[in-house]
Amino acid sequence: MSYTKLELQPLFDKIDELKPAFIERLSKAVAIPSVSGDESLRPKVVDMAHFLVKELTSLGFEDIQVKELGIQPPPVENPKLELPPVVLARLGNDKSKKTVLVYGHYDVQPALKEDGWATDPFTLVHDSVKDILFGRGSTDDKGPVMGWLNVVEAHNELKWELPVNLVCCFEGMEESGSVGLDKLIAQEAEAYFKGVDTVCISDNYWLGTTKPVLTYGLRGCNYYQVSIKGPGADLHSGIFGGIIAEPMTDLIKVLSQLVDGQGRILIPGIAEMIAPLTDKENALYDDIDFSVEELNAASGSKTSLYSEKQDILKHRWRYPSLSVHGIEGAFSGGGAKTVIPSKVIGKFSIRTVPDIESNKLDELVIDFVNKKFAELNSPNVIKAELIHDGAYWVSNPFNDAFTAAAKATEDVWGVKPDFTREGGSIPITVTFEQSLGTDVLLLPMGRGDDGAHSINEKLDVSNYINGCKTLGGYLHYYGRG
Amino acid sequence: MSYTKLELQPLFDKIDELKPAFIERLSKAVAIPSVSGDESLRPKVVDMAHFLVKELTSLGFEDIQVKELGIQPPPVENPKLELPPVVLARLGNDKSKKTVLVYGHYDVQPALKEDGWATDPFTLVHDSVKDILFGRGSTDDKGPVMGWLNVVEAHNELKWELPVNLVCCFEGMEESGSVGLDKLIAQEAEAYFKGVDTVCISDNYWLGTTKPVLTYGLRGCNYYQVSIKGPGADLHSGIFGGIIAEPMTDLIKVLSQLVDGQGRILIPGIAEMIAPLTDKENALYDDIDFSVEELNAASGSKTSLYSEKQDILKHRWRYPSLSVHGIEGAFSGGGAKTVIPSKVIGKFSIRTVPDIESNKLDELVIDFVNKKFAELNSPNVIKAELIHDGAYWVSNPFNDAFTAAAKATEDVWGVKPDFTREGGSIPITVTFEQSLGTDVLLLPMGRGDDGAHSINEKLDVSNYINGCKTLGGYLHYYGRG
Repeated sequence: MSYTKLELQPLFDKIDELKPAFIERLSKAVAIPSVSGDESLRPKVVDMAHFLVKELTSLGFEDIQVKELGIQPPPVENPKLELPPVVLARLGNDKSKKTVLVYGHYDVQPALKEDGWATDPFTLVHDSVKDILFGRGSTDDKGPVMGWLNVVEAHNELKWELPVNLVCCFEGMEESGSVGLDKLIAQEAEAYFKGVDTVCISDNYWLGTTKPVLTYGLRGCNYYQVSIKGPGADLHSGIFGGIIAEPMTDLIKVLSQLVDGQGRILIPGIAEMIAPLTDKENALYDDIDFSVEELNAASGSKTSLYSEKQDILKHRWRYPSLSVHGIEGAFSGGGAKTVIPSKVIGKFSIRTVPDIESNKLDELVIDFVNKKFAELNSPNVIKAELIHDGAYWVSNPFNDAFTAAAKATEDVWGVKPDFTREGGSIPITVTFEQSLGTDVLLLPMGRGDDGAHSINEKLDVSNYINGCKTLGGYLHYYGRG
Repeated sequence: MSYTKLELQPLFDKIDELKPAFIERLSKAVAIPSVSGDESLRPKVVDMAHFLVKELTSLGFEDIQVKELGIQPPPVENPKLELPPVVLARLGNDKSKKTVLVYGHYDVQPALKEDGWATDPFTLVHDSVKDILFGRGSTDDKGPVMGWLNVVEAHNELKWELPVNLVCCFEGMEESGSVGLDKLIAQEAEAYFKGVDTVCISDNYWLGTTKPVLTYGLRGCNYYQVSIKGPGADLHSGIFGGIIAEPMTDLIKVLSQLVDGQGRILIPGIAEMIAPLTDKENALYDDIDFSVEELNAASGSKTSLYSEKQDILKHRWRYPSLSVHGIEGAFSGGGAKTVIPSKVIGKFSIRTVPDIESNKLDELVIDFVNKKFAELNSPNVIKAELIHDGAYWVSNPFNDAFTAAAKATEDVWGVKPDFTREGGSIPITVTFEQSLGTDVLLLPMGRGDDGAHSINEKLDVSNYINGCKTLGGYLHYYGRG
């Protein structure tokens, strides 16, 4: 038990004492179906913003601002649809303290009982036998957002000052592409967010179900499409089969040459850009609590390309991958349709890692695709293009923020956290880092099996309550560090 | 001008005289939206059957039977949906005459004004400048069906006896797979259809727009699907990309090896089964009115694999082709979705020709697909299977029925018809041939640009009226032959 932990014990005890109130707060939040992807529920997303304002106000936050982001750009059904606001709030403005920006989102994924939920998704249900809270948003991301409020409430009850100045940035469009947020962050970088020393995002998950983690890296994603256009309209294969060059034949030949069955990308020049694996990084993988069995459980299959934990984690976190997602314009229904599609658009993406240069990657990919198509001597017309990209992110897991979070984690959970990366991207991480010029820490609250975007989303009560303690402890260690 | 034509001149004159009445008859038929593929319009399909019964009755047909086919099997929205009936009718039962069965269908493809029609699809519009009739079903297949009734009306007006016994078989499910018809034909082969000498189907089109044709061959179609299953559910490519074997990668590798960019099927053993091209058959292609420009106009592109007419026609009619139609289960929408589909089902079909043995083909295809998948050493699970097949058909274009139709065509149009085949299948052709043990003649009324399944479907008045003459002339030549 560290020296500091003794000092934090009253905070941890208070958090335990307030557990019923904290569950009640999360319950109120979950009851608001703030689904950003459903236009008809947009008023509920706005209600959720106002709920936050009310909570922040009663907790004593200052300078609470509801930042409107304007009209949602197309595609939308309602051309006048307003984006949900970003809620900003601040607690403390003491120049002698460090300033921590905490980010979370108050919108959620869609959920319908008939999707297969065991309980009403918008009622937080406490399974007291398993001590688990079920409900949409419980873990993604209302639990963590309430977590920051809970930390403040515990301090208020203890009549403790926060050890840092706290700046909150809570958005309502995260599940729908964070539309408008990049611009707002850029605008506020030298205004509301001026003086921020570090950013903490609690919007991801432990790797597994038993060991807490801190996350220091994310892969990026460059998403490409290859359109091949032939006939002026879809044709009947009886009449045209065998006498015209079919776009689908060409597309499949091109797509088949991008990656091999072992997941190796076949486009020359990419492997050379990958940062070499240092001994220090290599050693990190040995301690991590993970196994091929966990991967198999998560994928619901025995389709792993690797059997060793280290290989799996490296290929998830630090090597690029290429997935072919599908084809737009081809027949995609059930049964048999004898169509020759006139224009087909193959979709694939590459997960990017240090030190792949995004523009260089695009050039390699597009050139390769065009070259492979040219080899077919097809009369059809190709267009290969990038349609979306998001940068990878890697932090120093030994910096002040990570060190503080690691101490807090050990105090609360009794184990050192695993330092993990993630295969997916959280674009806002890079945005904060670049716009504010600060470090970012990903400090997850929930477990790997919480089912963030699935039915029966849950948050274990222990994760919720210990998560609050960890967030609070992190602020203290960071504030004093 | 042949001797016989002089005898038929009164019939041809009468048909010209009755033109307004014939257009009126077609107009009434087109006004009934008998869309078999739209369950909500099923009552209209039944109305159309009753319209036919009324017409047939007033024309003096005998033994008119409305054959109910029972409940439509799944997939249907209404589990009690009744199939449209087959309408049977007979005119004449003279043992000294030959008996001709004429088949047509009274259902039509779906059509909505908003699909892009210039006029209401269910109002027959006579463009008097171009002398064209526009409307859904005008050419497919209400024009030809009315054609047979018109021929009888002209005979009645002339107080002529028909030169043959005429048996009508009009169905209402052709555009939706002719469900129930095979069974009915088998049942009636030795009953209502007993004594039928030949079958005439007027449900296809001229190859081009200027020269009448008689059709003596159709390709068959064997339709396959290849399912590849990996993970238990769709996965996120950020988390799983690079560490599991993706079903889409495997499927695309398999599909890419089926056919080359020049349309050559790469599955060994198929080419060896194709009937050799005889000198006699080879010579038939030289006279046919067709060009690569017509193909380009039809495909709306310059994607032809061949520049010579003979090559194009041979590859449309007498060589097999393989088309990849699409993939079920993969991402098929617009935009970017970072999914790893858990189960993908590739769909492809092979157009079959003499002397490909269907079962042998299935074996070659499925073995090849399994072999190519095995070479990938994938942990995923494959299932390759035939999901639908329809036999090819080739007739002797010099038999009595074709000879009679050729004479009638020459009388009416002043040119010898082209003897054509088609790349697509008309499964009912083979059913009639096999169930009744008779020849089948395909005697088209409309032109190649009628747009049977498209917007602005049309039938030129000249094709409608001359078509009636040709049908009538065919009955006379065949009856006397």
